[in-house]
Formats: sequence, structure tokens, C-alpha cells
Amino acid sequence: MGKIILTGDRPTGRLHVGHYVGSLRRRVELQNSGEYDKIYIMIADAQALTDNADNPEKVRQNIIEVALDYLSCGLDPSKSTLFIQSQVPQLCELTTYYMNLVTVSRLQRNPTVKSEIQMRNFEASIPVGFFTYPISQASDITAFQATTVPAGEDQMPMVEQTREIVHKFNSVYGETLTMPQILLPDNQACMRLPGIDGKAKMSKSLGNCIYLSDEPEEVRKKIMSMYTDPDHIRVQDPGKIEGNTVFTYLDAFCKPEHFERYWPEYANLDELKAHYQRGGLGDVKVKKFLNNVLQEELEPIRQRRKELQKDIPAIYEILKEGSAKAREVAAQTLHDVRDAMKINYFDDVDLIASQSEKFRQD
Amino acid sequence: MGKIILTGDRPTGRLHVGHYVGSLRRRVELQNSGEYDKIYIMIADAQALTDNADNPEKVRQNIIEVALDYLSCGLDPSKSTLFIQSQVPQLCELTTYYMNLVTVSRLQRNPTVKSEIQMRNFEASIPVGFFTYPISQASDITAFQATTVPAGEDQMPMVEQTREIVHKFNSVYGETLTMPQILLPDNQACMRLPGIDGKAKMSKSLGNCIYLSDEPEEVRKKIMSMYTDPDHIRVQDPGKIEGNTVFTYLDAFCKPEHFERYWPEYANLDELKAHYQRGGLGDVKVKKFLNNVLQEELEPIRQRRKELQKDIPAIYEILKEGSAKAREVAAQTLHDVRDAMKINYFDDVDLIASQSEKFRQD
Repeated sequence: MGKIILTGDRPTGRLHVGHYVGSLRRRVELQNSGEYDKIYIMIADAQALTDNADNPEKVRQNIIEVALDYLSCGLDPSKSTLFIQSQVPQLCELTTYYMNLVTVSRLQRNPTVKSEIQMRNFEASIPVGFFTYPISQASDITAFQATTVPAGEDQMPMVEQTREIVHKFNSVYGETLTMPQILLPDNQACMRLPGIDGKAKMSKSLGNCIYLSDEPEEVRKKIMSMYTDPDHIRVQDPGKIEGNTVFTYLDAFCKPEHFERYWPEYANLDELKAHYQRGGLGDVKVKKFLNNVLQEELEPIRQRRKELQKDIPAIYEILKEGSAKAREVAAQTLHDVRDAMKINYFDDVDLIASQSEKFRQD
Repeated sequence: MGKIILTGDRPTGRLHVGHYVGSLRRRVELQNSGEYDKIYIMIADAQALTDNADNPEKVRQNIIEVALDYLSCGLDPSKSTLFIQSQVPQLCELTTYYMNLVTVSRLQRNPTVKSEIQMRNFEASIPVGFFTYPISQASDITAFQATTVPAGEDQMPMVEQTREIVHKFNSVYGETLTMPQILLPDNQACMRLPGIDGKAKMSKSLGNCIYLSDEPEEVRKKIMSMYTDPDHIRVQDPGKIEGNTVFTYLDAFCKPEHFERYWPEYANLDELKAHYQRGGLGDVKVKKFLNNVLQEELEPIRQRRKELQKDIPAIYEILKEGSAKAREVAAQTLHDVRDAMKINYFDDVDLIASQSEKFRQD
């Protein structure tokens, strides 16, 4: 069996440049590398519902946004299977059986769950579905026999939980599930892009995201308002790079050829940084450069999105076909899981024969 | 819509006289009363696996035992749908969505779960599947739009949890699920029969059960060894009725006609009790009477079981047909649930049309 990828996103909003540098760009590279036999990209609506049960409309409306973002960035349905989680009911059944292999205290120790509970101010009122989502994620990963889960460092405990379930399942019921591995981003700067206000987390509610689908003027405005070095007041003052959002974005997006095209005074980002640090370089100039860089990256994505938006039913068709394909694969895994657990009773001729024999002797 | 029953048992062993007086006998009466439009009897193998994940063979072997006990007692597949829980995957999907409507702290407060956790010495290592089984039970009940859940008083918190989920679901997503009610036993003595050793709980591991399938001689031996009043040493001593297992069993099983047939010296149980209490009546005589009473009740059940045991494949066929029927009903409920949650995206022409319109205007 070859190399198989499973990854995805919760459809709670349009995707932004943080998603792009953190995962999307990489996914497209992995897809086009030819190194993977199968790639499954999941729009995790069921997971999004675990903490949006009261607002299903939000999840429902954002599925198409995420799908458009995926396709605009270059995910290709002929190479990657794009599907919607809730349309693969086998995942729920796997979760049911995996839940017997994990203890409540083990879930409580999961650092990702801990920090997300804190972030969402859930405390005592955590929905059970949210609390147990590491188990549901194990179903997503194992259903497709994924070998590889491209994700950020913050997702390591989640993949570790899946590995534990795989280990436990295989030792109790016999070798059935594939052991997955996390594939971390190779570029540290890309691991988590801050919001334009410098806050660590980009979020719709904070209004600090640059979306992949933002119009050029919107992007420009957001860049011009970006958080830089608050002590860099006059042009001649020395400026700080660390925690300076404009430079973090340049780290994630800028390539040497951008200097040739937009700012030939510098050979590369190191030279630019050095000038900024010693003083004499204004924020506005750097922001304008970042704007050029980012517009160049986003323009083709935006254009593809505009094309794709013209035929929404076709996008649903892609998701429908992908979901049917995903269902087929998950059904096979579920069948193997049920066979291993020996709960396919009606197909189990040995069970029925041995019990007939036993009762004859009674 | 008419009156619908959902009830069932975990297949972790043969059923005993405690099950019989506590629920089985009643179920058969309800079935034959003609008052219920549909009756679903579930062999809860998936629930049994929540705390038997390491020993699936036990669950697997006992499904047929429970089915044989059901049919021997008079449950009739032409009137009641007998099915196996794990063969109705829709239940897992319902559970997934209901889990978003219940908080972790609410589950922790469930008294039934609390006491069962204690009973099983789980403490910190409760399997998640076991911890969440009140939610899974809500799926079992609502999947069949059950109006009526015949169960003991100890199950009241479980049915209450289901009622909360129904209320929450209907208020968030619109009227979809049927509100169930518990139907308590009408005879207090039948609510929980003690073991033959006088211990409150009958259990296989304590070896204190009289099984419906026990041979006559086995039943007799168990009755003769029954715990009575430890202070009732000589025949002439006054004896106690309270906590005297033989009398508790007589309360549950004995009818006036039994005296006519087996012990015409007494008109009824009250007279017998009075004699025992004032002294002059030995335990052995009372036990012999109980043996006559119980043998009369168990003999036809045992005979039917012996007949049924001759054709085990036919029993599996009954369960297979019942499971197919249960699946059909559960699939309809799940469809309604998904419609209410609006996650049947691909069938949702309004969603696709409105989004097409929205993106045209962008």
C-alpha cells in the first residue's frame, strides 16, 4: 500500500493567508509532487458543528467558501478527493468503536483540547462532541488508511491520539488499521501567521485576517494598516524585525525574484531587514513592497475563484463525487474493522455453525 | 402517530429470572395487549462493547442466548421487531449529532452513570464510550420515535437525558424527535429481584442467578440453597419475611392458584407469611413450594427454548430481518434529523440556487 494523505479544514469561514501558508500551499505542492498515491481533503462540517450546534447555518454557508478556496489554490479533484465529512456516515460508526478504546482521563489530558477549551471559554460547558473530537479525528484519518497527516505542530497531540487508538485497536482486534504520521511544515515562519494587528491568532471575529478571496484594494488597505514596530516612530529610528507583522509576512511570502521585480535596491530579504534594523527605512515603503508580493501571489487565486464562482452547482458536483468516493473507501475500512471485531454476525458462517453444534450437544 | 416501545438488553450473559420479572414478562404482556403500534426490542451489543472492548467474544456469544431467551418467553417476531444494535449504523450517526447538544458536566452528573462507574470500579479509567452511553441510548430511543420506554426506576435518569436531548434538538433545529416517557413496573417486588444469596444484584460472576434456561434440577438446587432468615434456626422459631429471598421470589412469582395446586393448606401468600412469622414453619417446606411455583413458570419457557435451539440459523434469520426493518425506520429518522439540521446539502436545491445567486452578485 502506498502513501496516503488525509487533511482538511473546518468550514467556519473563508480561508485566509494563514491557512494558505500554513497548509494549503503545501497541500498543493504535495498533490503535485506525485509522491502520494491518494490524497483526501475533508471539509470537516461535522467537526465544526461540535461547537456550532446552535448555528448550523454558519457551517452550511461556509462549505462552498472553503471548496472555492481549495480549488482556487490549485487543489485538483482529478488528483485529490475533496469531500464533506458529514456525507461519510462510516466515520460516525468508527468513532463509536474507537470511543471504547480511550479513557475519559486520557481525553482530558490532550493539550490541544485543553487549549481549545480555554480559547473558546467553554470550561464546564464543553459539548461532549467537542470533548471527544480527537477520537472523531482518529476515524477521519484511519478511515482512509492515511499514512501521512500534514499539519502544524499544534496538531501533534491529536495525531498522537490517533496513533494510540491504532495501536490499541490493532493489539486488541488484530492488525487492521494503518499507523499514520504527522508531516510538519518545513518552513518555521509558515507555521502560524499572525493577524494584521500582530495578534497570534487570525480570526473572523477579530477582523484581522487577509482572506484569499479579498479584493486587491481590501488587501492593500489591510497591509497598510498592519502592526509593525510601535517604537519605530521616525524613519531614521532603528526598527525591530521580531514581532513585526510586515516582516513575518515577508518571511512567509517573499522570494528573491520579488526584489528584482518590485524593489531592485535590495538583493534579498536579509538586506532589507538589515536596513530596517539600522534605521532609515520607513514602514510605508516596506508595506508597499509586501503589498506587491502578496498581490502577485493572490491574483491568480482570486481570478480562478471568480471563474469557479460562476458555476456553483459544478462545485457541489465535485464535492458530491468526492464524497461518494470517500464513502466507498471508508466503507471498506469499516468492513475490515467490523470483521476484526467479529461483529459482522450475519455473514459469519463459522459463528452460526459452531453455535448450532453447541446447542445440539446441550 | 401511535404508541411505540423501545427497550432491550445488553448481551453479556443468558437472561435470568431477575430479567424475567423485572422486564421480560412485562414486555410480553405489553406486546400482547394490542395497545402498541410498534415494539422494538434491541440486543445492545454496541453498548455491551463499551465496557467489554477487550472481550468482544463474550458479547458475540451471548447475542444468540439473549435472542433465545426473548423468543422462549413469548416475544413474537411477528409482533415485535427484534434487532441487533450494531447492525443499525444510523444510531452512531444520531449519537454524533446529539453529542453536540450535551455538555461533559451534564454527563458527569448522571446518577446512573455515576453508580455504574462505581460498580465497575472504573474511576479514572472510564472508557469514553461507556461515559457517553446515555447519549447513545437517546439515539436508540429516538431513532424509532419511541413514545414509551419500559424500564426500572434506576433507568429514570437515562430516559431524562433522552428527554433533554429531544427538547434541545427540537428547539434548535425544529420539531423533529418524539418525546419519550418511561413506563415503570407496576409491581414494586418485581423491580429488582435479589440473587439466591440475598445480595441485591444478580450477577454471573457471583454465581447467584437462576437462569431462564437452567435445567429443573439446577433450579431446584439453587432454590434449596437460597438465603432465608439466618436467625430462623429451629422450625418453631418465628421467621422474618423482610430480606428473606424465598419470600421475595414468592412475592414476584406466586399466584393464589399455586396454593390450590401445590399447597392447599394455605389460601394465599399472606396466610403462609403469617405462619412463617409466628413460627412453626420450616424453610425447606417453603423452598419446595417456591420450587413448584418456579418450575411451573419456567417449564414452558425451557421447552420453547429447546425447540428453538434446534434451528440456530433461523434465529439469526429473525434477527437479520428485524435488523433490516430497524435500519429502515432509523434511516427515515436520520433523514429527518439531517433535513432539520440542513446538512443534506446535495439534495438542497434552495441552498445551491441561493449561493449561485449570491456569487453572481459579488
